[in-house]
Amino acid sequence: MTTPIFPELTEAVIAAMADAPDPRLRQIMTSLIRHVHAVVRETRLTEAEWGQAIAFLTAAGQISNDRRQEFILLSDTLGVSMLVDAINHDDGPEVTPSTVFGPFYSGLQPGLAMGASILMRPEAGTPTLVSGIIAGHDGMPIAGALIEVWQTAPNQLYDVQDPDQPEGHLRGTFRTGVDGAYSFQTVLPVSYPIPDDGPVGKMLGALGRHPNRPAHIHFMISAPGHRRLVTHIFIAGDAYLEGDAVFGVKPGLIVAPEKTAEGAVIHYDFRLAQGA
Amino acid sequence: MTTPIFPELTEAVIAAMADAPDPRLRQIMTSLIRHVHAVVRETRLTEAEWGQAIAFLTAAGQISNDRRQEFILLSDTLGVSMLVDAINHDDGPEVTPSTVFGPFYSGLQPGLAMGASILMRPEAGTPTLVSGIIAGHDGMPIAGALIEVWQTAPNQLYDVQDPDQPEGHLRGTFRTGVDGAYSFQTVLPVSYPIPDDGPVGKMLGALGRHPNRPAHIHFMISAPGHRRLVTHIFIAGDAYLEGDAVFGVKPGLIVAPEKTAEGAVIHYDFRLAQGA
Repeated sequence: MTTPIFPELTEAVIAAMADAPDPRLRQIMTSLIRHVHAVVRETRLTEAEWGQAIAFLTAAGQISNDRRQEFILLSDTLGVSMLVDAINHDDGPEVTPSTVFGPFYSGLQPGLAMGASILMRPEAGTPTLVSGIIAGHDGMPIAGALIEVWQTAPNQLYDVQDPDQPEGHLRGTFRTGVDGAYSFQTVLPVSYPIPDDGPVGKMLGALGRHPNRPAHIHFMISAPGHRRLVTHIFIAGDAYLEGDAVFGVKPGLIVAPEKTAEGAVIHYDFRLAQGA
Repeated sequence: MTTPIFPELTEAVIAAMADAPDPRLRQIMTSLIRHVHAVVRETRLTEAEWGQAIAFLTAAGQISNDRRQEFILLSDTLGVSMLVDAINHDDGPEVTPSTVFGPFYSGLQPGLAMGASILMRPEAGTPTLVSGIIAGHDGMPIAGALIEVWQTAPNQLYDVQDPDQPEGHLRGTFRTGVDGAYSFQTVLPVSYPIPDDGPVGKMLGALGRHPNRPAHIHFMISAPGHRRLVTHIFIAGDAYLEGDAVFGVKPGLIVAPEKTAEGAVIHYDFRLAQGA
């Protein structure tokens, strides 16, 4: 190992935080400074490359708005979101695996009656009934669990990306009864590209990566006495299950829809970890 | 050393770039991904902390504009800019040390006659004559060197930060003759806080750091056959020479102004490295 370039600079930046009132912030920033400096040293970053990094970060901030979050896309596409998820949700094999939250949640929606459709207008996709049980890690059904779901339309866009969709289309909120059962009507989800017309899309292109995610429905499930579960269910057979642009697929989240005369039926039971 | 959390995720993100057409980009991104993942693992970053990081980056992008560059401030205040500078300007002890470019350069200004004032309106500061020789590493004067200078007014603001200052105030461009000599009239620079009303200012506050830089005049000197030099001259005795918020001070850049009946005189000779 050769002597690092200008090691006293890194120590000076860290020493400047000696009086930080919050030790946790100092800990995080110390780790960040050491590792960012290591990237610059390892790569011998040029001034032009540094300038490209500044321009990239600036463009990512400026394209972000109430309906688009480019830094979440960046975190997702670099695997950072899944790593944060893994560190904070190591809840054991009895509970349903979590996955990325993503940038397309749009807040608590009005509650729907159990079994209702989350469509606010007809869609050409395969009509699909999704149902199952919300249970604790011990398999006991949870009453009063709040289930929030969201997905794209068959045109591969969420309502927040598509001015032609009614706000709240393909989103729904449900609350379980004593049986812990949930069900709703939707259309089969489709695979879709994450927004790739901005800096993150350019980055993926320059890295020879595609922007696609396999078909999925987002779930966020909250219940008193349990840890909130943020996850998806993925559709078996999707071409992008291998190679999800945000690394979100876990085998335990893949389900095979059953074909019926009316369309398809998906059955998936969730198990939540105990906790606050 | 314990087994890292979810190591296969980091490898999957890196493997996804296997087809990147530009090997240098793949190299930089590989280093970045490994180190950013290391920060998340080392600190066991919480989801709330991750959310604060996303919000910080977004706010930094959104406050940036033609006249303000928050990501350069971030790079400067975390010592990244000085590290990039050190890696790219290790030109040896015979040449003038470089330092941070900073976010306040505003493009090539109209040329001034040698010896002219860079003030576009009177200022209450100490009238100061700055002069010296632009030379190569061997001490031979360089004819036709382009010297660009910029500094704050006595109110601690650059023209681009202060709508009351005329555009181009306290900025100037000069070209040396055969003697390599340069000179201009100005006012003594003052120490000043970097813009601290945005995310970087909040960060410095949370880290127990002050935002101040010691008094300095920026120089960018370009000449055919020589490496462009970006540097400052700092004023001896300034309270912030120890503790510059952007870590930009180098001993060889500090000069003691000489007091005169009219104000002050600064003499500083520059030596440029050979190169393109």
